[in-house]
Order: sequence, then structure tokens, then C-alpha cells
Amino acid sequence: MKAGMRTEDDVLERIERARRRKPKVRETRITAAHGAGGKATQTLVEAVFVDAFRNALLEPLGDSADLVLGGTRLAMTTDSYVVSPLFFPGGNIGDLAVNGTVNDLAVAGATPAYLSCGFILEEGFAVADLRRIVASMRECAEAVGVTLVTGDTKVVGKGSGDGCYVNTTGVGLLPPDRALGIHTARPGDVVLVSGPVGEHGVTVMLARGELDIEADLVSDTAPLADLCARLLAVPGVRAMRDATRGGVATVLNEIARAAEVSVVVDEDAVPVRDEVRGACELLGIDPLYVACEGRFVAVVDGAHADEAVAALRAHPQGADAAVIGRVGPDPAGTVLLNTAFGGTRIADLLVGDPLPRIC
Amino acid sequence: MKAGMRTEDDVLERIERARRRKPKVRETRITAAHGAGGKATQTLVEAVFVDAFRNALLEPLGDSADLVLGGTRLAMTTDSYVVSPLFFPGGNIGDLAVNGTVNDLAVAGATPAYLSCGFILEEGFAVADLRRIVASMRECAEAVGVTLVTGDTKVVGKGSGDGCYVNTTGVGLLPPDRALGIHTARPGDVVLVSGPVGEHGVTVMLARGELDIEADLVSDTAPLADLCARLLAVPGVRAMRDATRGGVATVLNEIARAAEVSVVVDEDAVPVRDEVRGACELLGIDPLYVACEGRFVAVVDGAHADEAVAALRAHPQGADAAVIGRVGPDPAGTVLLNTAFGGTRIADLLVGDPLPRIC
Repeated sequence: MKAGMRTEDDVLERIERARRRKPKVRETRITAAHGAGGKATQTLVEAVFVDAFRNALLEPLGDSADLVLGGTRLAMTTDSYVVSPLFFPGGNIGDLAVNGTVNDLAVAGATPAYLSCGFILEEGFAVADLRRIVASMRECAEAVGVTLVTGDTKVVGKGSGDGCYVNTTGVGLLPPDRALGIHTARPGDVVLVSGPVGEHGVTVMLARGELDIEADLVSDTAPLADLCARLLAVPGVRAMRDATRGGVATVLNEIARAAEVSVVVDEDAVPVRDEVRGACELLGIDPLYVACEGRFVAVVDGAHADEAVAALRAHPQGADAAVIGRVGPDPAGTVLLNTAFGGTRIADLLVGDPLPRIC
Repeated sequence: MKAGMRTEDDVLERIERARRRKPKVRETRITAAHGAGGKATQTLVEAVFVDAFRNALLEPLGDSADLVLGGTRLAMTTDSYVVSPLFFPGGNIGDLAVNGTVNDLAVAGATPAYLSCGFILEEGFAVADLRRIVASMRECAEAVGVTLVTGDTKVVGKGSGDGCYVNTTGVGLLPPDRALGIHTARPGDVVLVSGPVGEHGVTVMLARGELDIEADLVSDTAPLADLCARLLAVPGVRAMRDATRGGVATVLNEIARAAEVSVVVDEDAVPVRDEVRGACELLGIDPLYVACEGRFVAVVDGAHADEAVAALRAHPQGADAAVIGRVGPDPAGTVLLNTAFGGTRIADLLVGDPLPRIC
């Protein structure tokens, strides 16, 4: 146990407190918001899934589970992908499905090793499109050094799907001494992002063609294993989490709640490309809530902040990495945003679903 | 390497021969048959997925992959479940999703340990139904001693799903000396089924209410880990495979092809309940092709056939276990059926999809 780290008792006590909060799903029917990664998703997960499956491996609700099997410590994670459209500038559902699952292992500090994939195909889906998706998956898997070892294909009738849904589940090796976790964040830590935010979500929204906006944007979908490994060479890294559904703001809220700390973010410090900022203004969305598929948030001991930024910037994927905020003691569980206009506001979990099916 | 077992070179050579056969998908669009587990599924899997992902871990196409991670040998398997209706006599999509994935690990000789689950929910799906499904998953997982450690929830719009689809992926521990595999079947072996066939598929078909047949049937969905462990205590067990999509006949074809042997089955010896036989006659389907979700086919050295049957029958789930056929040398790759009327015919892989979405 490193000096200053929360003990296991602390974590268990926090889980116990969360249990007592007992979230309730008030809706009788599933809505889009239940899949958006924000408040409704969190409530559904806690009130239905965690409540039923209660166990010490599931309840930390990390990007992946931290397991031991036959003496080996491993990480396991799963994600289903339902992005619409299936093909968008910079990627498609295939590379998204490989990168997304690989990234959930990488941010946990694991070395991604094996992937499974399950397809749910709609009758009438073009075999040529399936081939393109599968070819992307292969290229991505090769690039990151993971092996796709088992799969499954189901077909549903016309109108019971939307072309192609993909589930990928991944396992990776976790070093015995790795002790990352957002619950370990504490006052004095800094919060970093590994690159500009919101490109994936905005790109997918624009690719739907429902908006009369043109922008020269591509998705940021990318495997992060390499970049994560670079950062982990720096001392004082407490946690990494990829900023997918719900974007950076959702991750910051997860950190604030898990560690019972405040996170204070300087809006000006958050790297956002002009095209993303422009599109977000027209869409009426804050880029901090828009999904990335190739960026992560990291919590690092403040004493090592410069080293951490330098390590990220030395890698092409981390060229625009930046410190965007700091961890403080109060108000615990809250994310505060110092706005570009000099004000301060709470950046809470997202309500509703402004960007459906972006992953 | 046990005496008489095929060597690794044999297996690699067989894989190489299969490569040279180069199956081709002739359809330009996905059809229901691509998901039925028969000929079209096999062609799709080989021509699209295996062709893209080529690797020695994937290509045996077993119920699960046989992996090594950090010195631990483990099995990994994935399945998506799209059964319609979601609730049927004897079970629902939740227990099906746990049992099915646990069984794919168990028949590989692994001890199931951890499960992930991914939900794709359709907007408007009743939260109460989701709770029932999740409660069944928990009960099943508890009964078999597996822990659900990580999950994911996505929501798609009305008309882009069908209530609820579930993916489960499982990992389990494989003993270092376990060497099961359908490619190890050889002349003199017997083929067993662990119980009466076809109950799951017929039950689901009848539950749809599209047919004017009433029968007192429940699905056979059940976890097989215990029964598999019993059988593995008998010497001479070469392989087990659960008879899901495509039924027992599909498994027999997989054995015949993988081991380049013939499998000769006595139709009279196959345990089939009267209700299943009656419904199958009306539906015009052979029960040998109807999915089970709690039965497996085993290949056992002929010298240990009686012991194997006795071991299975000593367990409530195996009370009706029976030897249904024998492995022979010729014609290699073929399943022959000695019919109840004294004739012999080839029982080939299924063409088309007589029973869509039964798992």
C-alpha cells in the first residue's frame, strides 16, 4: 500500500454509503437517456444491475473489472456498440468496437491481450459492409497487438435491429503491483486530458446529415494503450479513464463522487478544436459533455504534473495534452467549472440524451 | 500428449486444408439463415470472420477459445442472445444468457469463473421486464458459482431493436492437462447425448403463439457445469459440445468434419420426448436439428461407453443420457442416420432457418 493511499476499508465503506443512498428508477419504460452515460444511466446501473449482482468485483464500476484467475491478475471489460451511422469520417463501428474495449483495459493499467466479438446483424444488411467493418477490426487489433479469439453471430429480422450491432469483450494482464483507481484522487492532484475533446461525438452527429452544418472533422477514435503506458512511466499517476459517453464532464463527476473530493476545472484550459466549438455552439451542447473515443482523463499527483504533461506530449496522440483542473477537498462530490467569462458553475452529470447512439 | 491423440501438426494441417477449401458467401445481403447455425452460418463465419482474423486461437472454432494469460490457462467464450419471445416456459433471455455462456466454458472442460454482460435495450422497454431478466441472471449465476463482474447498457430507438438483447462473455479456468477437442474423435468412439433433445427450440416456437399447437413443454435451459464435471471423471472422454443452434445434428457434423471421420447415428436411440416429436412432425422439422440449451453431445472412447452413460445417469440432469451413435472411418466428414424405418440417409448441415431467434 503506497503512503497516503485509501485503504481497502475506506473503499468498502464508501461502497456501503453508496448502497444506503439507494437510487431509484422512477420511469416505468426505458428512455434514450438511460443509454446516454449521464444521470439516468447511472441510476439504472445502480438501481437495477448493481442492486441485483452485488459483488466486490462489480461494485467499483470501473472501466474494467480487476480479477484473479488461477493466480493471474487480469482486467475484463465489455461494451456493445450501436453507433449510427455505422461509417463516419475517421472510422466505423468496427474500429470503434476494438479501440473502445482496448482503451477500457489500457486506462485500467492493463496490457490488452484477447478480444471476443459478438455481432447482431439485421436481415438485409450488406455483406460488403460487414466485410469493411471486419477488416477495420482486424487492422485495429493488429495495430494494438490484441488477438480476436472467439466470436458469435446472430441475425434478427428486418426492423428488429439497425444493420449491425457489435459487442466486444476484452481481457488483459494487470501487473500485480498496479493500484490505479479514481477513488484514490485527493486534494493537490491535477486533472489532465490527453488531447482535444469532443471530436468523436460531433463528427458522428454531423455524419447523420440531420444538421445543416459542415465541418472538417474526423472522429478521434484510436487505441490508447501506448499513450497510457507512457503516462504510467511517470510517478504519481492515480487513475486514467477514457472520456466516452457523457464526455470529460461525466468522468470528472465520477472522480469527484468516487473519491469524495471536488474537481475544479478551468474552461479555458480545456483543449477544444475550433470546428468542435463552433458545431457545439450551434447544437447547444457543451463540448465537455461530448464523447471522445481516443482521449482519456488522468488524475496525477500535483508534484508530477509537469512530468505527466511532458510524457503525454512526447507522443503524437498526446501532443495537445493539458492540465485542465485540480482536485480539492470541498464541496465533496462536485465538479466546479471556472468559465471563460470569469464565473463559476457546477458541471453536474448530464440529464437527457442530446447525442444518442454515438458509440 | 496422450497415446493415440492427434498431434498438433495434424491439427494445423487440417486447418490448412480447410483454408484451401475457401468457402464463399454468395449472397450480397444477410439472411436469417446466416444466423441459424447451419451451412450459411458456417460459410459466413469462415469466409468473413475467420478469413479476416486468422489466428491459431480462433481457428479451431470451438465453443470457447483456449488461451494463456500470465501463465494461467483459461477459456473465453461469447454469445449474444436475441431470443423471441423474451419470456418462455422454463426460462427467459436472462437465464439463457448465463447458462449458454457458462455451458460453452463447461463443455470445453473449463471451470466457469467470471461473466460480463452487455444489454442493448429498445426505447420503451418495460423496466419491470428488465428487472425480471436481471433477477434470473443473478439466480443462475449464483447457482453455478460464477460472478458477473462488468457490464454495459446501450439504448436504441423504437424500431431499432426488439425489447432487449443480451451479450454475455465468460472466462473460466482450464486445467493445464486437459486436452478435449472434437478433432480428437476417432473410429471406435461412441457418441452420447446427455438428455432428450429439442425441448428448448420447440418450446420457444410454441411460445410465439403463431402455431395452433398446445404442448406441455418447458425449455431445457440449464447450467451444465456440474454434469460435465461428472463425465470428465470418466476416462476416455474426447470432447463435449452443447447442442444449441442447429441442434445435435449440427454438432455431429462438426465432429465428422473436424476429425475427418464418419458419425453413424441410430435414430431410434436418440431420446426425444413425445411432445417434442409430435410438435416437430407438425412443424416439419427433424428434432435432431432443434436447439437444446441444457444438453450436450459427448465423444467417448468406446471402451468407456458404459461408464460414461452411468456417470451421466447418476446425475438428475443426465437421467435420460444415451449412446446415440458411433464414430467410423468412412465416409469422412459425413453424418449417417440409420432411420427408424430401416433406411440410412445423410444428415447434413441445415440449410435455411426453420427456427429463427431461438437463442
